[in-house]
This record gives sequence, C-alpha cells and structure tokens, in this order.
Amino acid sequence: MMKATVYVTIKQNVLDPQGTAVQGALHTLGFSEVEKVRIGKYLEVELDTNDRAEAETRVKAMCEKLFANTVVEDYRFELEG
Amino acid sequence: MMKATVYVTIKQNVLDPQGTAVQGALHTLGFSEVEKVRIGKYLEVELDTNDRAEAETRVKAMCEKLFANTVVEDYRFELEG
Repeated sequence: MMKATVYVTIKQNVLDPQGTAVQGALHTLGFSEVEKVRIGKYLEVELDTNDRAEAETRVKAMCEKLFANTVVEDYRFELEG
Repeated sequence: MMKATVYVTIKQNVLDPQGTAVQGALHTLGFSEVEKVRIGKYLEVELDTNDRAEAETRVKAMCEKLFANTVVEDYRFELEG
C-alpha cells in the first residue's frame, strides 16, 4: 500500500479567476492585506502496490491523463508508505 | 511579504463523493490499483505583511471564515517568507 499526495497548480502565467474571486471575498471580509490568491487541487491517492518505482510511473500517468491539464497546469506528487 | 500555503481536507469520517467519482474515472482508465481517493483544496495566499505571528493569526481566521467548513473539513497551513 502506497499513498500519493498530488498537488496540481495553475501555471504562473495563466489567469486564475477562482483565485481572484476568493481574493475579492477576503477583501470583503476585511482581509485587505491579501495581495494574491492562487487555487490549486490537492488529492490523496491510495495504491495497492508496494513497488515505489511502479507507483511513481502510474501516478505520473494519472496526473497526465486525468488530474492535470498540462497545457495550463503543473503537477507534483509525493509518495509514502 | 509572506506566503501561506493552505491545505483543506475532508475529515476522515466524512464521505467524499468527488473522490469516489475520481476513483471511478481512474478505474475506467485502467488504474485498477487505486483503492481510495480523497480530494481537498490547495490555496496559495500572498500577504502584505512581514510579521509572522500576525500572518499566522490572520491566515487562521481566513481558514475558519472562508476556506474551510470546519464541521466537515480540516485545514493546515505553512508560512514562508
């Protein structure tokens, strides 16, 4: 059993309207010191394997195929267990 | 300028239908070794302050008021800068 923690973030030069909306909400709530908000995705994936190299290959494939749109998003992940 | 990285996760005993849907999609794509998927939120927040203690208090307040529904979600954050 291995656990992968995956982070998907919007690329630096791509607009993040969801982040802008959250920033607006924070300003409305009085958090005027907030200068920028970027929103990403966070996933925890449990895999039925003990082979770390295989898990790495498989999670990379999941990121490329499903989790991230690599045109506008970056991803990274950590494996444990 | 400080940067906070915020992670919001669904509490352990709370159902995660979005995670279940993603797990189903992974199985359809051939990733049959995936046993569980939990989905959370990931936010990067830039604050116009250099006071770490103040930033910590403020980000905690943002999490409680906006980022997390503390009835069903947990949150944690890291500060840097």
